[in-house]
Amino acid sequence: MQHKSFHNMPCPIARSLERVGEWWSMLIMRDALFGLRRFDEFQKSLGIAPNMLARRLNGLVAAGLLERHRYSVHPPRDEYRPTQRGRDFRPVLIALLAFGNRHFAPEGTSVTIVDAQSGVEAEPIIVDRATGRPIREPEFAWVPGPAARERTRQRYARRPQPETPPPGAESDPPIVRKGSPK
Amino acid sequence: MQHKSFHNMPCPIARSLERVGEWWSMLIMRDALFGLRRFDEFQKSLGIAPNMLARRLNGLVAAGLLERHRYSVHPPRDEYRPTQRGRDFRPVLIALLAFGNRHFAPEGTSVTIVDAQSGVEAEPIIVDRATGRPIREPEFAWVPGPAARERTRQRYARRPQPETPPPGAESDPPIVRKGSPK
Repeated sequence: MQHKSFHNMPCPIARSLERVGEWWSMLIMRDALFGLRRFDEFQKSLGIAPNMLARRLNGLVAAGLLERHRYSVHPPRDEYRPTQRGRDFRPVLIALLAFGNRHFAPEGTSVTIVDAQSGVEAEPIIVDRATGRPIREPEFAWVPGPAARERTRQRYARRPQPETPPPGAESDPPIVRKGSPK
Repeated sequence: MQHKSFHNMPCPIARSLERVGEWWSMLIMRDALFGLRRFDEFQKSLGIAPNMLARRLNGLVAAGLLERHRYSVHPPRDEYRPTQRGRDFRPVLIALLAFGNRHFAPEGTSVTIVDAQSGVEAEPIIVDRATGRPIREPEFAWVPGPAARERTRQRYARRPQPETPPPGAESDPPIVRKGSPK
């Protein structure tokens, strides 16, 4: 299936999804970061058709998240190892895990993250590295960066008030906006 | 296109992707959390075919990330607002943004997250809420949760050493494993 490509979108989310947003790709990265390496390991773990798995692995290699290493010459066999870029993808998986555990695990969690020493369950949140403050509205804002194109700048200039529901909405508590950064 | 469903996988990442892992869905959530509400706003922002957009919006409503609100009776028109579940998806987008900015913005960032008061750029990292410690190997580990099925338990019991490359690999610095939690 031919998707419309996100490649030419300047948005960093779109560019990430261009590389890892195909169906299966993130689960392959999950398994690769978990330690799976070989084609048949991925196939067994995922129950994915071989031609689809080959396509996805090739895509992740092309995007620089996995590296191919030949581990057998006769017959020729490759394994797939996460690169530094691939390891940098882990926070996305952790955020997806936390989201899934919070919203789609009515029977209790199947997989969770714990302190490796104490076994105490962790609650993953995103903070700013320098200050340790949680990244959320309205304390933090999304703004155009130095390489923003005109369209991105215009879009953020006339930014609607995110998450502030229209009057009368009942399900959304009002959020006080403190304005844009100078 | 019919995907193999991830619905029956117990993994919280797979379950999240089942709801938001289709091509376009995460960009729709990005726009919805940015403040877009109406069909034509999403269409203009994304350049997506109307039938595809309608399908994705329906999927996100069915998954409980967006809510439909009628804002015009003649003609009938709905807008789409993030629910609490939809707002809880924001950390995934922040993690994708940070990943994209780090790896796929060679010309500089197009969008970035800043302290709304000072304008200082934030560096998003994932930490444990209670302790503030960065969630990474080997300090934290992924383990079966209370609702893990037998297959998940077996898988984690014979867990390969993640991210520890075989001897001779040059690109991966060795990581000291401290063992599993008790």
